[in-house]
Amino acid sequence: MIRKCTMVLAALTVLVVPTVAQQALFGGQQIISPEIKDDHSVTFRVMAPNATEVKLSGDWMPFEGWMPGSVAMGKDDKGIWTYTTQVLEPELYGYSVLVDGFRTIDPNNAFVSRDVATLTSIFIINGGQADLYRVNDVPHGSVTRRWYNSPGNGMDRRITIYTPPGYEESKEKYPVLYLLHGAGGDEEAWVTLGRATQIMDNLIARGMAKPMIVVMPNGNVSQEAAPGEESKGFYKPSFMIPGTMNGKFEETFMDIVKFVESSYRVKADKADRAIAGLSMGGFHSLHISRYYPQTFDYVGLFSAAIMPFGEVTSSVYEDFDATLKKQMENSYKLYWIGIGRSDFLYKNVQDYKVKLDSLGMKYTYRESDGGHTWKNWRVYLSEFVPQLFR
Amino acid sequence: MIRKCTMVLAALTVLVVPTVAQQALFGGQQIISPEIKDDHSVTFRVMAPNATEVKLSGDWMPFEGWMPGSVAMGKDDKGIWTYTTQVLEPELYGYSVLVDGFRTIDPNNAFVSRDVATLTSIFIINGGQADLYRVNDVPHGSVTRRWYNSPGNGMDRRITIYTPPGYEESKEKYPVLYLLHGAGGDEEAWVTLGRATQIMDNLIARGMAKPMIVVMPNGNVSQEAAPGEESKGFYKPSFMIPGTMNGKFEETFMDIVKFVESSYRVKADKADRAIAGLSMGGFHSLHISRYYPQTFDYVGLFSAAIMPFGEVTSSVYEDFDATLKKQMENSYKLYWIGIGRSDFLYKNVQDYKVKLDSLGMKYTYRESDGGHTWKNWRVYLSEFVPQLFR
Repeated sequence: MIRKCTMVLAALTVLVVPTVAQQALFGGQQIISPEIKDDHSVTFRVMAPNATEVKLSGDWMPFEGWMPGSVAMGKDDKGIWTYTTQVLEPELYGYSVLVDGFRTIDPNNAFVSRDVATLTSIFIINGGQADLYRVNDVPHGSVTRRWYNSPGNGMDRRITIYTPPGYEESKEKYPVLYLLHGAGGDEEAWVTLGRATQIMDNLIARGMAKPMIVVMPNGNVSQEAAPGEESKGFYKPSFMIPGTMNGKFEETFMDIVKFVESSYRVKADKADRAIAGLSMGGFHSLHISRYYPQTFDYVGLFSAAIMPFGEVTSSVYEDFDATLKKQMENSYKLYWIGIGRSDFLYKNVQDYKVKLDSLGMKYTYRESDGGHTWKNWRVYLSEFVPQLFR
Repeated sequence: MIRKCTMVLAALTVLVVPTVAQQALFGGQQIISPEIKDDHSVTFRVMAPNATEVKLSGDWMPFEGWMPGSVAMGKDDKGIWTYTTQVLEPELYGYSVLVDGFRTIDPNNAFVSRDVATLTSIFIINGGQADLYRVNDVPHGSVTRRWYNSPGNGMDRRITIYTPPGYEESKEKYPVLYLLHGAGGDEEAWVTLGRATQIMDNLIARGMAKPMIVVMPNGNVSQEAAPGEESKGFYKPSFMIPGTMNGKFEETFMDIVKFVESSYRVKADKADRAIAGLSMGGFHSLHISRYYPQTFDYVGLFSAAIMPFGEVTSSVYEDFDATLKKQMENSYKLYWIGIGRSDFLYKNVQDYKVKLDSLGMKYTYRESDGGHTWKNWRVYLSEFVPQLFR
C-alpha cells in the first residue's frame, strides 16, 4: 500500500492554514459557549477583555415587561466572561449577550433563529417535550423550498413542503396539513422557530402521528417569498407587512391547495385536509376553514387573532355566523383552540368561545401557561398533529 | 359590505403590541444597517452608546495577514456609530463589527452566513457577476434537504438537491452535477456561502446553462449531516473532522450516484454526469473521477487539494498515474482547474499541472486573482456550469 505519487502536502499546510484563515477571517473565538452540562445547567462564555460589564439575557429568565431579564457575567483574568445557569428544564431556549449594553448573539454559538428582523442564539436542553424538537436517530422526512404559481396573486410564490419519511419511495397517497405562520413570519418560520421538521419526524417515529405532508406557505400576499429569498434582495424584515389581514390570502388560498393536490400524492378530500396556524395564521385558518366550509375536517387555532381591523371590505369576513353554521352543518372532526393565559389575545379568544358556544359549535379548548410565544406554538403543534386523520 | 361581527380588535392591539413584544424579546435595534446607497457606497450603523471604540471589519478591506482590516466608526450624540464605505464593486460581501474589540455580527442585519463555526453578516452589491448571486425575477428551481441511505457508510445521510425550474412538471431526464464542499463544510455550504441556487437559476434563465440537477452531499463521512442537523445535536462546528481525506468518501460515492439515479429523472450516463468541488471537494472530485474512470465527462477542481497526507492506505490513492491514464483513455469532455494566484494551494496545483502535462492529459486552466475564498468559488462555479452537457 505505498502511494506512488511524489506530491505530498504536509498535514500542516492542508489543515492548519485554512483553519487559521477561516477562523481569523471570520473572527471566531476559540471557546465553547454554550456548554450544556450533564445536570442540564449551562455555562456561557464571552471573550470581551475590554468590556466593563457583560450580561446574559435568556428567555428562561423572569421577564421584565416584554423583555427577558438579564444577569451579570463574571470576568476572569483572560477577559472571558462566564455565567452558569441553574438546572434548566428541557426546552428550546433563546438568548443574547449584552456587552456594555450592546445586545447581540453569542458569537461562539453557530446556531441562531431569525424572528422577524432579529437573530437570537439558541440551544436545546434535551428531555421531555424538547426531545420532539431535536434531531433524533429516526427516519427523516424531506423539506423542499419550491415555488408555485398563484394566479390569484399574479405571481410565483415560495413555499416550504415537508414530506414524511418514505414518501418518495411509496405509492401511497397522504393527508395534508396546511400550517400557517404569524405576522412578521414567512415560509421559513415553522421549520426554523417552530422546529416543525423535527416535531413531525419524531411524532411519526413514535407512532403518534400519521405520516402526512405539511405545507407551509407564505401568508403575506404582498411578498413572493421570505425576506432575502425574493427579488427585493436583502432588506430589514418588518412586522408591518401590508395586506396580511385584508382577505386576499384567504381568497387566493385555493391556489395553494390546487398546487399541492396536483403536485403531490395526496388524498384530496375534506377528511384528509387540516389547517392550523399561529396568531395571524390562526386568524387565516379560522377564516379559510369557514370561507371554504366543505374543505377541512381539522382546524387548529394557535393563539389566534379573530377579526381584522379597520376598514376591510373583503367578502371573506362577511356573514361570519352564517358561514360558521355552514361549516358546522357540513361537519368536521376537530376544531382545536389553544391559548396561553397571559397571551394578549386571551380575552379575544374567550369572546370567540362565547360565540361558538352560542352557535352550538363544538371545539376542543387548550389553555396553557405563558403567552404569545413559539414555546407555546411548538407545544400546540405537538398536541394538535397526533389528533389528525384518525 | 358591512361586517356583521361584533368582535373587532383595535389595530393597535393586534399590530403594535406584538411588534413591541418581538423586538423587545429579541432586542432588535430600530436602525437600518447596512444601507446600500444608489451609488453603491454602504452605510453601517451600530447602536452602542457605552462603547469607547467601534470598528467595522469587512472582506472588501485590505487584509492584514489572514484577517480583513478594520476601520473606526464615528459616534453621534445618540450613541449610534456610523461608517460609510467608498463605492463598492458588485459582490457578495461579509463583515463583522468590533465593539471595544468584541467581534460579532451586525445585529441590525438579519442576513448571515455560517462558515464552519462562525457567523458573518452579509450583503450584496448588485451588478455584474453579483447579479448571479441575487434572487432575480426568473423561474426558480427547488431545493430539497433529504436523507439517503449509504450502505457503504452504514448510515442514513443528509443531502441537498437542486432541481431546475420545471423539473416537477416535466417528463424529461436531466443531467447531474455533483457539487462538493471543502473542509469544515457540509451539505449546506454551497447553497448558503456558495449561492448555488441563485447561480443556477440565473444561469439557466439567461440560457447560459442547461437545466440540470445539482447534488450537494456531505463529504465528511463521519457525519450524518451538517452540525445541528443530526442526532449529535447542536455542537461547535469544527474544521478538523476525522476521516475526510482517507478514501472512504470516494469509496462510498456510488451510494450517492445510485440514490440520485434511482430517485430522480436523470440521464444516467457519463456524458450527463459532472463532478466538481472546492478545496477538499476538489480533491474528492479529482480522486472520484479517476477512481471511477468511466463515470464523469466533466470534472471541476476549484482551488483543489491534490493528495492526502500522513499514512493513508486506501486503494483510492494507489496507482494515481495509471488511473489518470485510464480516465484519459476513456475520454472526457472537460477537466477544469481553477486556482487563485495567492491561494496557499497554488504551488500544489502548479505541480499537478506538470503531472497532467507529462501524462498528456488535457485540461482547461483558469487562474484568478485572490486566494482560497468563496468569492473565487462562486466565480468558478459560474464559469464551469455553462460548459457542461453541451
